[in-house]
Amino acid sequence: MIASPYLLYLGHVNDEVGIKTSRGLAVFRPDDCVGEFRHDDCELTLGLPRMGFAEAVAAGARTLVLGIANAGGKMGDDLVRDAVAAIEAGLDVASGLHNRLRDEPALVETAGRHGRTLHDVRDPRPDIPIGNGKPRAGKRLLAVGTDCSVGKMYATLCLERAMHARGMKADFRATGQTGILIAGSGVPLDAVIADFISGAIEQLSPPRDDDGWDLIEGQGSLFHPSFAGVSTGLLHGAQPDALLLCHDPVRPHMRGLPHYPMPGLRETLDANLQVARLTNPDVRAVGVALNTSKLSAAEAERLCAETADALGLPCTDPFSMGVDPIIDWIVKCFEPSPRKATLSL
Amino acid sequence: MIASPYLLYLGHVNDEVGIKTSRGLAVFRPDDCVGEFRHDDCELTLGLPRMGFAEAVAAGARTLVLGIANAGGKMGDDLVRDAVAAIEAGLDVASGLHNRLRDEPALVETAGRHGRTLHDVRDPRPDIPIGNGKPRAGKRLLAVGTDCSVGKMYATLCLERAMHARGMKADFRATGQTGILIAGSGVPLDAVIADFISGAIEQLSPPRDDDGWDLIEGQGSLFHPSFAGVSTGLLHGAQPDALLLCHDPVRPHMRGLPHYPMPGLRETLDANLQVARLTNPDVRAVGVALNTSKLSAAEAERLCAETADALGLPCTDPFSMGVDPIIDWIVKCFEPSPRKATLSL
Repeated sequence: MIASPYLLYLGHVNDEVGIKTSRGLAVFRPDDCVGEFRHDDCELTLGLPRMGFAEAVAAGARTLVLGIANAGGKMGDDLVRDAVAAIEAGLDVASGLHNRLRDEPALVETAGRHGRTLHDVRDPRPDIPIGNGKPRAGKRLLAVGTDCSVGKMYATLCLERAMHARGMKADFRATGQTGILIAGSGVPLDAVIADFISGAIEQLSPPRDDDGWDLIEGQGSLFHPSFAGVSTGLLHGAQPDALLLCHDPVRPHMRGLPHYPMPGLRETLDANLQVARLTNPDVRAVGVALNTSKLSAAEAERLCAETADALGLPCTDPFSMGVDPIIDWIVKCFEPSPRKATLSL
Repeated sequence: MIASPYLLYLGHVNDEVGIKTSRGLAVFRPDDCVGEFRHDDCELTLGLPRMGFAEAVAAGARTLVLGIANAGGKMGDDLVRDAVAAIEAGLDVASGLHNRLRDEPALVETAGRHGRTLHDVRDPRPDIPIGNGKPRAGKRLLAVGTDCSVGKMYATLCLERAMHARGMKADFRATGQTGILIAGSGVPLDAVIADFISGAIEQLSPPRDDDGWDLIEGQGSLFHPSFAGVSTGLLHGAQPDALLLCHDPVRPHMRGLPHYPMPGLRETLDANLQVARLTNPDVRAVGVALNTSKLSAAEAERLCAETADALGLPCTDPFSMGVDPIIDWIVKCFEPSPRKATLSL
């Protein structure tokens, strides 16, 4: 487990996508974030107090989270220098970058000398089994998308928060580095060996019998030619009872692939239901989550209403409008199983 | 490249499935196999002369191929002892086992001392790109199956051999350890990191403009809940023009999963065509390959005829009946592009 509270690293980054992991933590774990570290040339902020490393330690921080993405996942000299200084000030370091902290000799040496811990959240655990597809107890929801990065993690985390507010049992199950840092555990699915994709999800989301929900973070898209294999294995391993369809209505084409148009919502839903039925024939769709951050409130309302009509499912922007219609629908579709009578003799 | 000719290892194995890699080499590269090595308690044979290591070296062998599979892919003490003796006699060692030769100190030490090479064919190359799905030149056929281990590799290798016999250009592209040992190169797809499945196939089968075919070895099945992610990424990376559907008509249920029934042939074909269309909208089926080794000749003939009628495609057992009807169909479907006029002035 990664020790909290956190100091969130922005460094020299100046594009929003580049700090999305740090921002995810600030949004979904605000109580665990004491401040942000940024250099003078960084013009972004998470709205947290700006702090140096010693100052953060004095404020209670225990881990510097390198919540940034840079081209190719590489660790630049700047980043290593900052992380060394953080360790020397008394912080552990956690990273979701492709390049591993443990492969940087300066970090390993400094952490060893100061008795600090380095967390590479993109290292899968070593004991992932081959998936077996055996039906397992419990209720599971999986977020699926028309594309990568359309808001699957945000939608799932909003759902968890709102279910908790209603007194429902629900646990977010993380499958990407940002989600893992937010949840404190999970599987970095994109780093798992191909034969173990579905097994990794069976391990992540074991049988449960408490009438609670596992809310599994989706990855990629069945329509993304680079990553559909991951999405397929994730669907099979999740054995989802419920699918939440996520979409970004202003995305012009598949992420990174101008030669691939976005698929339609109905087409996406049908394909996901078809693949999911292999391991759970009773799977059903429970709602649509739109990322309307680039639309006006009126446009967003209209688009959600039109989408709900077209698909016959509740549709909302989980982040700006909440997820109540979707939870209502889930409750309606999945009546709680009758309690087993317990005899005390 | 792995130096030939080979000595094929059977060791103590006594089930046919356990020696399938050695048998694959004996069947498809007979001219490169000088003998087989087996202990007295091994009752199987590939029909090759039985040899000790020194005898094999004297007969020209250059590499001992550990073409066996044992439970969990583990390397037992016996196996290591035999491999050490082979190295000391002057042989390189090649293995497709999950456990790596390079992780056995005794092998590394002995090979180093004698200047011999250890080949772990399950190590993917380090420079596999993320797939991009961009249309590329050339004609590609992919074998797809109702299940794992239904004869996809055999069908593809039979097709390559028969195309060569007709003077057609065709290259088998291996995606599993047996295929890699037979072809001398390829990608061990089950050992690739999940995000790189389709990219690995784009790299394996680059654009070609010589009117020849890449014949890509299939893996798994869209209907196998453990491995469908691999099959999906393989379909997208292959951008196949042609699908060859492979099936074992006596398989009672999905391999290793008694709770999963076998899918139908039409269902399997439709699902594969649908997934393949994402990266090649013009993909089409060109035939059905049945593994009829457990049927009488009359039953096999009847089943192939019935299947051909039902699906409207040529159907044959490639190994026992040849693949002529399938090649005829391929030639009919994919007329050679008109030769470009070359002016010599």
